[in-house]
Amino acid sequence: MIRSRGLRASICLSAARTRFYSASPFAALSPEQINPKISKMEYAVRGQLVLNAQDHIKAIKSGEERPFPDVVLCNIGNPQSVGQQPLTFPRQVLALCTCPSLMDDPAIVAALPADVVARAKRILGGCHGMGAYSESKGIEVVRDSVKAYIETRDGYPTDVEDIFLTNGASEGVKTLLTMLVCDSSDGVMIPIPQYPLYSAAITALGGSQVSYFLDEANGWTLSTECLDAAAAKAKAEGIKLRTLCVINPGNPTGQVMTEENIKEVIAWAAKEGVLIMADEVYQTNVYDPTMKFHSFKKVLRSMPDLAETVELVSFHSTSKGIIGECGMRGGYLELVNIHPDTKEQVYKSLSVNLCSNLPGQVMTDLMVNEPQPGDPSYESYRAEFDTIFESLQRRAKKLVEGLNALDGVTCNQTSGAMYAFPQISMPAKWLEHCSKKGVPADTQYCLDLLDATGICVVPGSGFGQVDGTWHFRTTFLPQEDQMDAVSERLATFHSKFMSDFA
Amino acid sequence: MIRSRGLRASICLSAARTRFYSASPFAALSPEQINPKISKMEYAVRGQLVLNAQDHIKAIKSGEERPFPDVVLCNIGNPQSVGQQPLTFPRQVLALCTCPSLMDDPAIVAALPADVVARAKRILGGCHGMGAYSESKGIEVVRDSVKAYIETRDGYPTDVEDIFLTNGASEGVKTLLTMLVCDSSDGVMIPIPQYPLYSAAITALGGSQVSYFLDEANGWTLSTECLDAAAAKAKAEGIKLRTLCVINPGNPTGQVMTEENIKEVIAWAAKEGVLIMADEVYQTNVYDPTMKFHSFKKVLRSMPDLAETVELVSFHSTSKGIIGECGMRGGYLELVNIHPDTKEQVYKSLSVNLCSNLPGQVMTDLMVNEPQPGDPSYESYRAEFDTIFESLQRRAKKLVEGLNALDGVTCNQTSGAMYAFPQISMPAKWLEHCSKKGVPADTQYCLDLLDATGICVVPGSGFGQVDGTWHFRTTFLPQEDQMDAVSERLATFHSKFMSDFA
Repeated sequence: MIRSRGLRASICLSAARTRFYSASPFAALSPEQINPKISKMEYAVRGQLVLNAQDHIKAIKSGEERPFPDVVLCNIGNPQSVGQQPLTFPRQVLALCTCPSLMDDPAIVAALPADVVARAKRILGGCHGMGAYSESKGIEVVRDSVKAYIETRDGYPTDVEDIFLTNGASEGVKTLLTMLVCDSSDGVMIPIPQYPLYSAAITALGGSQVSYFLDEANGWTLSTECLDAAAAKAKAEGIKLRTLCVINPGNPTGQVMTEENIKEVIAWAAKEGVLIMADEVYQTNVYDPTMKFHSFKKVLRSMPDLAETVELVSFHSTSKGIIGECGMRGGYLELVNIHPDTKEQVYKSLSVNLCSNLPGQVMTDLMVNEPQPGDPSYESYRAEFDTIFESLQRRAKKLVEGLNALDGVTCNQTSGAMYAFPQISMPAKWLEHCSKKGVPADTQYCLDLLDATGICVVPGSGFGQVDGTWHFRTTFLPQEDQMDAVSERLATFHSKFMSDFA
Repeated sequence: MIRSRGLRASICLSAARTRFYSASPFAALSPEQINPKISKMEYAVRGQLVLNAQDHIKAIKSGEERPFPDVVLCNIGNPQSVGQQPLTFPRQVLALCTCPSLMDDPAIVAALPADVVARAKRILGGCHGMGAYSESKGIEVVRDSVKAYIETRDGYPTDVEDIFLTNGASEGVKTLLTMLVCDSSDGVMIPIPQYPLYSAAITALGGSQVSYFLDEANGWTLSTECLDAAAAKAKAEGIKLRTLCVINPGNPTGQVMTEENIKEVIAWAAKEGVLIMADEVYQTNVYDPTMKFHSFKKVLRSMPDLAETVELVSFHSTSKGIIGECGMRGGYLELVNIHPDTKEQVYKSLSVNLCSNLPGQVMTDLMVNEPQPGDPSYESYRAEFDTIFESLQRRAKKLVEGLNALDGVTCNQTSGAMYAFPQISMPAKWLEHCSKKGVPADTQYCLDLLDATGICVVPGSGFGQVDGTWHFRTTFLPQEDQMDAVSERLATFHSKFMSDFA
């Protein structure tokens, strides 16, 4: 239907004609034309080592010979890719939410525990199903569960409107950093070693990474003296500190912060007037019975002078913990002491993505709202949960012991998270060898380890380390029988490495 | 475990002491401190109107009186939020993928069509389940299905390695724009009117929006003369054109491009050396039986001189079409004629998010890989699909007829997508009234429409329009009986509006 109108500005109306031009290939987006911030960005967890590992996997699948029976992916905290079974209860509930018509069939309902059906109905009652965009913050019925979880965990009130559901924690972290970082004068304090999402996001945004070093000799503790040193250096370079990122429990380091230490860090942030970004995705992964997870929110609320002033954003995810639902990309962030108008900007930023995925939202509910004693699913859920937890605990201990038994390798106790980050004293001959090749010594170590044993770990340079020290990060996620084989293959490789180069 | 090491640079080791500071509230992230690119960003589809609509919904729920029985959300293409039922087959398959143990129960298997079970097994055979991060590009078994779909649709070969699964199309669009836009010298050509994801992303990246106007008097066609005009203006301002974004079928305009028109646009892009970003998320939503969807890829491949040179990225989504699975956040992008090293950068950029959500990946498979004649689910799937399609077709026609029947309102035929974008000739008295209030005339019209009728639509200013013209965007997604009521309520409101102000 075509009509002309009175009120129209001049726009082009002449009939179009077809014209052809020849074009040069790759004229528009050659590698040189890519935004240099993106070209510069690094993300080691999925880099060359992983591509090499995938080549080995394909080769073995197609019958090619390799000096190892299989590839063991210890490069990423992805438990279900290496044999961890999903918890049954959340999956049953999510299946019913996904296909509510299953509940119309009495045979199917009879085959499932009653609390599974009830839980699915509760969630579906609070949304338009898994196929509709939810409100930008995520469906309220899930945010209610998150609120209750945080209140029970911390003992302080939480406003459901301060909770935003996100696609994993990564989306939340990137959203906040995008609000904070405008150019290279904006500094983001991150631990070294760190999880490379942070360095990658800072590079992509053109901000300045302000590195503070965790103290390896003291079990990877975070000291305010190191924060002071990093801040002083940044300020001398004209960088304004915008935020202090803390990962607790630590990735890749596995340390768990004490309540006292968190208090010091909060007081430091208050002094400097920086916002705290607390990456608390491993809050359920504390294996050391003498340690306990303390949330930054709880500790902050316990400090009368600062409770209502220090700005804090905390992040959580369904990918870690015991639930380990990485593929669901569920997570949330909580805003604490954030200006109301700033909250609106967070809302707007997340709105542009419309909403986080609904299955991930539901999985977030199921992570924070577990079956309770007396519920039909309680016993089996608890048994599955405890089995995974205790196994992770054993694997963490065993892996670290195995690493410390190696010549020239030292590794701090892994109190939490999913990783060990051992230090390797590289022989001088090896350093020379790598220097000639132009490859960092830890990267070459990991490449050779992969080719010799099929074990895929990530070099310390991907996370940051004190200059002149060399590390790698390995998960302890493969199942227990496989972890034993990993320790053996690693020991054999390392012993040959030391005899060749030491 | 604590050990000292030889090879360590000087990091701070002194014992930490607790110190307290008082902090000012909102010192770190006050609204003034937010990255101005983010503050400036606008996203009308989820703006003030939607918040007002939510207030009305809550009020009605809690028993408050309103001059309308319910709020009708026509602000967003979110079919399942307004009564569209999900297609049964994809949901059944996804439920089994979510909870594979359901397939251990013969009663459950017996209750489901055999092809549902087979399809779930095919997908689960190609991944580590819904709970593991997949490879960054998405699981290969799904990308294989996408490849087959594109090849069948277009009749040209597709490389599975050029397909990347994304969280909806939005993530793909933002990833590409982030690679292309470094600063305000980088121009992104977008249609006016446009879907505000584009303007929001350009603002957030600090790039320059280069607006080309669709020709409302000619059914919202895209003419190369308008591209020329926009390009000349941008170049005169020192802006380098980086990419030409095209939305086909159009959002918010509902036009469908002819093959001839697409050829002209491709030739134009070749002449200018710009990459084409083809937003083709409404490819299944073509209602006019005289029109047909032509993909940019197919048309490009049919142009011998340009087939291998013009750079193209096309985007698709599970959110639209007939499947309408917005909440799943599934989608993909296909790279065409992109430099191999640039592809690696796309890979790296998406890797930082680890992967798109697995339920969304599976839904993408089910969108492109439908039950075929002879499959147990075929007949019922077809019936559900056709019912939705035909109803959308009827609603599109009826809505546009209803709009054109209103005094001072004109609306082009909606050939595709999910929207109508009528123009309103605003009476001079109304323009004066709004000018005094300092609110754009279309925004105030939509605010008043909402308060009087409960109908939530989005003002044209959120999408862009020729200066001095006024529009709004409305979906035709509410179910048919409700759409009739919408037309009636709108007619009553508009008639009073005209009698008050004309």
